[in-house]
Amino acid sequence: MTDLATTVIGLGSMGLGAALSLARAGIPVTGLDLDPQPGRDLAAAGGRVATTPAEAVQDSDAVFVFLVDAAQTRRVLFQGGAVAAARPGTVFVLCPTMPPDDAVAIAADLTTAGMFAIDAPVSGGAAKAREGAISIMASGPEQAFRRIQPALDAIAARVFRLGEEPGAGSRMKLINQLLAGVHIAAMAEAMVLAAKSGLDLATVQDVIAECAGNSWMFQNRGPQVVRGDYTPFSAVDIFVKDLGIVTDAAQALDTPTPLATAALALYREAAQAGLGRQADASVARILARKAKARLPGDPA
Amino acid sequence: MTDLATTVIGLGSMGLGAALSLARAGIPVTGLDLDPQPGRDLAAAGGRVATTPAEAVQDSDAVFVFLVDAAQTRRVLFQGGAVAAARPGTVFVLCPTMPPDDAVAIAADLTTAGMFAIDAPVSGGAAKAREGAISIMASGPEQAFRRIQPALDAIAARVFRLGEEPGAGSRMKLINQLLAGVHIAAMAEAMVLAAKSGLDLATVQDVIAECAGNSWMFQNRGPQVVRGDYTPFSAVDIFVKDLGIVTDAAQALDTPTPLATAALALYREAAQAGLGRQADASVARILARKAKARLPGDPA
Repeated sequence: MTDLATTVIGLGSMGLGAALSLARAGIPVTGLDLDPQPGRDLAAAGGRVATTPAEAVQDSDAVFVFLVDAAQTRRVLFQGGAVAAARPGTVFVLCPTMPPDDAVAIAADLTTAGMFAIDAPVSGGAAKAREGAISIMASGPEQAFRRIQPALDAIAARVFRLGEEPGAGSRMKLINQLLAGVHIAAMAEAMVLAAKSGLDLATVQDVIAECAGNSWMFQNRGPQVVRGDYTPFSAVDIFVKDLGIVTDAAQALDTPTPLATAALALYREAAQAGLGRQADASVARILARKAKARLPGDPA
Repeated sequence: MTDLATTVIGLGSMGLGAALSLARAGIPVTGLDLDPQPGRDLAAAGGRVATTPAEAVQDSDAVFVFLVDAAQTRRVLFQGGAVAAARPGTVFVLCPTMPPDDAVAIAADLTTAGMFAIDAPVSGGAAKAREGAISIMASGPEQAFRRIQPALDAIAARVFRLGEEPGAGSRMKLINQLLAGVHIAAMAEAMVLAAKSGLDLATVQDVIAECAGNSWMFQNRGPQVVRGDYTPFSAVDIFVKDLGIVTDAAQALDTPTPLATAALALYREAAQAGLGRQADASVARILARKAKARLPGDPA
């Protein structure tokens, strides 16, 4: 047990999973989201639900931010009143995927306001978030980690400590997103070619699991194409955003990223086709349309 | 134990591994290669070494072909005299990655000559071949599988049976190679961006292993870039060939493969830069040169 009080701002699939993991670990947790449904789930698990950023962070020791991007994070923390209402020395844990420069700037503003900031993007997906088993790529002051360690342990299987300077966590996350985004698009390309070749996609899924072509994303997203079920655990729009950040960062460093660029074009095309809020594996449907291939779930 | 006699034609890293696995299982095995060194390794493990295709296949029940491509396979089997010297009903197991149409045609010619043919590309890499733990994507007559099952069990952890018709094994292998080739190139792209971002590559390797960006190839090939050691377990030229087969097959099916096409361009560029016989992970050096990034092993 611990006497830490925690807050989770943003109860999407990752944030709600983290909040439920904190509650399960017996750590007091207050959640905030515009959508009332995840708050009900959190309340049922013993958490509190706040209605404003100020109320959410009052008396909190650790504020986990699970918002969509840097702009939303700034809005809620600074204009929304969270930082003004927080006790000095509160640790803000910044989990969104954002450009490293934004993570550095937000952390600097938090420090100026008397707070601690950890640049702490996460990976692992909704299921691992519920289990308290995500991975965190984190950089920030040693003292901040020490204060909130029990809360980090409750939500993560692995916390990678990447130094004391904010920015390193976000830079590492971009590397992960480059790979993740390319691997989903490669899965889609492979499945569409397999379908057009006359192979059974469920068999492809089983075979690749035991071969050198396997990836975390092939195992996680391939079954969506096999079943023709594009329920959005993670949406096309997320990778439009994240691979956009990756390719912008790469361009600023004069570093070519031909695969990430090709994958981004597919996510953008899917978003333009109205699939932005659908599962990211929907890029398979874009490729299938071009190839005139039939995928599971397509009309006969 | 079994009274099967087996032959392995082509003692590269995969073929030698398979031959050693057969010998270890107590199955008589004869090997053939132009290079004398792997034959010495096989002889030391209790295998026999032949000097001609005819001698290699005499009195054999199962002939495993681990040559480079369809052209070399045709040459050794038909012009080289292997098929003429084999007993009727010998099972030829075709392991090279080749266009499905070539696998179908070679199998048909073997059948016409009174032999059995299994279209049986493999995956898993040199280490798994030595352990007798590769995966085989196989299609061919039920009777042929039954006759040589102990030999398949000796070299493979998994034999995926993809029906009675040759071609299905090769079609599945192309799906695997599309993914494998793209994942190596994505690893290279990620490592170069990480280096340019100032991240420590050994840390990147450790973190990605626990995150959603992970892949079989990232785990297998990433350490080559981290160590700056491009010893060619599998060479750039292999993916120039294999992704060429993939994109040709896709084009024939009017199926777009933007990622495989982008990856193939990188392997071709590496080959043109003189790195064709180097490790496939050498695509990282091509990207690093363009990005003016320093990788481990580069001169300071």
